[in-house]
This record gives sequence, structure tokens and C-alpha cells, in this order.
Amino acid sequence: MSTRCLVNGRASSQVAADDRGLLYGDGLFETLRVIDGRAPLWAGHMHRLSRGCERLGMPAPDTDTLREEVSALTRDEGPSVVRITWTRGRGARGYGPPASPQCMRVVTASPAPVLDPDWSAAGIRVRFCDTRLAVQPALAGLKHLNRLEQVLARAEWRDPDIVEGLMRSMDGAVVCATAANLFARIDGVWVTPSVENCGVAGVARAEVLAQWPQCRVGTIEMGALMQAEEVFLSSSVRGILAVGDLAGRRLQVGADTRTMQAHFAQLLELGA
Amino acid sequence: MSTRCLVNGRASSQVAADDRGLLYGDGLFETLRVIDGRAPLWAGHMHRLSRGCERLGMPAPDTDTLREEVSALTRDEGPSVVRITWTRGRGARGYGPPASPQCMRVVTASPAPVLDPDWSAAGIRVRFCDTRLAVQPALAGLKHLNRLEQVLARAEWRDPDIVEGLMRSMDGAVVCATAANLFARIDGVWVTPSVENCGVAGVARAEVLAQWPQCRVGTIEMGALMQAEEVFLSSSVRGILAVGDLAGRRLQVGADTRTMQAHFAQLLELGA
Repeated sequence: MSTRCLVNGRASSQVAADDRGLLYGDGLFETLRVIDGRAPLWAGHMHRLSRGCERLGMPAPDTDTLREEVSALTRDEGPSVVRITWTRGRGARGYGPPASPQCMRVVTASPAPVLDPDWSAAGIRVRFCDTRLAVQPALAGLKHLNRLEQVLARAEWRDPDIVEGLMRSMDGAVVCATAANLFARIDGVWVTPSVENCGVAGVARAEVLAQWPQCRVGTIEMGALMQAEEVFLSSSVRGILAVGDLAGRRLQVGADTRTMQAHFAQLLELGA
Repeated sequence: MSTRCLVNGRASSQVAADDRGLLYGDGLFETLRVIDGRAPLWAGHMHRLSRGCERLGMPAPDTDTLREEVSALTRDEGPSVVRITWTRGRGARGYGPPASPQCMRVVTASPAPVLDPDWSAAGIRVRFCDTRLAVQPALAGLKHLNRLEQVLARAEWRDPDIVEGLMRSMDGAVVCATAANLFARIDGVWVTPSVENCGVAGVARAEVLAQWPQCRVGTIEMGALMQAEEVFLSSSVRGILAVGDLAGRRLQVGADTRTMQAHFAQLLELGA
């Protein structure tokens, strides 16, 4: 099974060179885990995508069409990672969006990564990145195509034993990992950073918050995080990644983390 | 004359759907004015592009190849606007850049816009945008592909009589227009905003600074700008755009602005 791709519904691996997604990063994307045509967190992904379109002032995709395309690409396949890219399409030169955009969609499916069993047993190793997240409320929360901050942060290390890097905002608070959200139990209280100023409103993050209404959404400072009793990352592709080594500090994988890990393992069929 | 396009040196209007330029905005671009194969500010554009590659940790393009491609697309044509897009190419899923990227280049030429003669005579009308520029020193100055802030700012107005919109940084200082740099004479001293925290280090801006070594690079607050004696915008495609109406305040096009306008009109062959 290799990568399969639909561009505006047709089998293709090419897009227009003057698409605004390439010219300006003018669009959004979703990355989701799909098992034999079923996407467990589908509603959450579609909700974020349509909310993102509203905020960028572009038409939302037809979710039935997307569902059929995702299904067509993944049916009779093993677990897949699907990326849906939705851009404002082609346009005349210049930043100004066309009055009636002809949006472009790309749906790509590839084999889901096989997760290292050690990750769930002992937890993963995580570092801090130097690259900061800019404070930009107009774009915060969205999974848009402007991802150079994440690219620069992920380029900071090559050690394959380090699975993720935590990113701080320009004002110093810890916000998220390069491709996952952050949860920490600090003084007995679970907290996840707000994504009002930067970061992505993860679909797996929303699922954790739905499971744990008592989890606080707030600010996590570096010092407080280093004193946390439990830390994990959430991802709609990789599930719950318990943190066992936080920039050199050993952490136990606690009971709450194990509970949430089990919830996501079942939800995302991570054993599949 | 319509748009002509080369992708990696071959006539094409398509790029790979998994190019990191589309996936993450992982790349840079230049937009330049070319007259019959000659690009007056070529050295400045190539300098910014190669400096941008260094900062993003990607290989720089071969400038001789680019020059040949630009020349091939514009030779025997009228004045053209050329866009050069340089991305980190295709890569495995995930933000991490490939160890040995096969960068992609797109060179596109279209007819240069015809400038309204009133713009240079009486000056243009300019507004203030609500969309702010995030403070991000890691990306500031670069002409990278993450341009959603400019897209949102340019989407704020449709009145064709308003030619440009000024953008402030998150901390309130005025930084630039959506697609041009800003110069203002305040209390007899020319100033242009620093691009250390946000904004693009314009090639035309560098040319103005080279002509006027006495011009200060600093901070321009809203209040000070509204008291300026002269204001203009610089663009390597449109030259010097004198501001005649700054968010409702009438401004004279002063002698210094006329001098710089004339310099760029000759340099960019704007009469051509």
C-alpha cells in the first residue's frame, strides 16, 4: 500500500502551480487516522475545518463528498493516515482573495505509522524547542497551511529517540508539541494550554476535554511543567503519547494517563 | 501575452500535490519587475532569496539558472512581473525537513500591471488594516510562503479606490503595507520601520535605504505617522507609491518623494 491521492475528486498527484495554497499558504488541512474507511474522530475534524473556513472567509467543503473520497481511498486497506487539504484555489496575482473562490481539495492516504510499543509502556522522550510560536489570535487554533514555525522547530533535532519537541509562545508559556497538544497534571489538577493566542485546537485535545470536563484550559509556565506529576501529548493520528522523559527529567506514566491512553487505543483502534 | 510558467525548468503549470510548499508553506518567493529579459533589482532579489534559504536551512537555488529561466520567459515581451517560488520540495509526511531536500522552483511571468497615472500625480489612498502582524523574529524579514496575515489584511476592503492597507504589529507600531514597505518623513527625518520582528525586508526598501543613507530604521507609532509631512510605499513591482490620502488625512506629495519616485521610474523603467 503506497500513497493514494485525489485532487478535486480525480486520481492525480499534481495541483495547479498558481494555487493560493502554494502561493500564500492560503488554506487549511486535517490529518486523521482512518481504519478500513472509518475515521473515528470524523465529526471533530469536519467541525474544525468548517470553523476554519469561516474564520478565513472561504467556502467550506462538502463533507459528504470528503467522506466518500476518504472512504474510497482507504476501503479494504489497513490503518491509514489521511490528509485533507482545502485551499482557496487559483486566483489573480496578489494577496486579495478572489470574490468567488473555486476552492481546491486534495485527499491523500498513506499507511498509518506503526507506533513503537515502548512509547506506550515507558513513555516518550521530549525536548524543548528554541523556535517560539508567535502570538496571533487571528490564526490561533486553526490548522492552516502556514506551518513554518513547526518546520523550524522540528528541524532543531535529528536524534530519533526524541519523539517530540515542546514549543513555547513568544511570551514564554508552553503551548504544544510540534504536532500534538499538551496535557499536564500539576498539583493534582489536569491542565492544557489555551489556543486563543497560538497553537492548534487539536481534535484529539477536544476529545480529551470532552472526556475530562474537569481539565482546566489555561497557561502552563515552564517551571510548573517541570514539576508536573504526569504529562502526555494528544494526537488524532498517534493517540495519547505519555511523556516518560521531559528534557531529561524522568516521569512515571500515571494512572490518569493510562486511562486516557486506553480510551484512545480503543477509539482509534491503535491495535489494528 | 498571458501567464507563462516553468516548473523545475520545464514548461508546466502543475506541481506535485505533496510539495512542502503546499503542505506547510515551506519555502520562499520573490516578485520582480522584468523588462525584456532584464530585472533591474536582480541582485537584491537574489541576495534576499539566498539569505532566506540560509535562515530556513535549505539549499539556495542556482541564480544563473534562475536568470536564464526569467530571461527565457520574458524576452521579447513587454514589461512583466515575474514570481520565483522556491520550496523545500517533496518529503515524507511530517514537519521534519528531509535530510537532502530536492527543492522545487516555479518561475512565472505575467504582464506587468499598468499603474494609474493619478497614483503618481496625486498619491494613492491608503487605509489601516485591523489584521495585525505577529512578532516572530525567526521569520521576520523573509519573503516566505506563510502569508495568511497579508491575505486576511487584504480581504478587509474591496473599494478599488483604496490602493493599499497599512499593517501594525501586535504591539501597535506601523510596520508596512500588505505588499509594500513604508517610509515617512516625521519632523523632517525620514524613517522606515525595522523588519527585525515582523514584515518583509523589501528589495525596493533596500534600494531606498541605499540612496538615502540618512534614512532612519526604527519604530513608527500610529500617532507619529498621522503627523508625517510625507509618506510613501516602496515596491519592486510598482516603484514608489506616494500616499495622498492616509486614512482620510490629505497629504501633499513632497519634494523628497518626487525625487525617489523619479529614481524608481527610471530604475524600473516604469514608463516602459
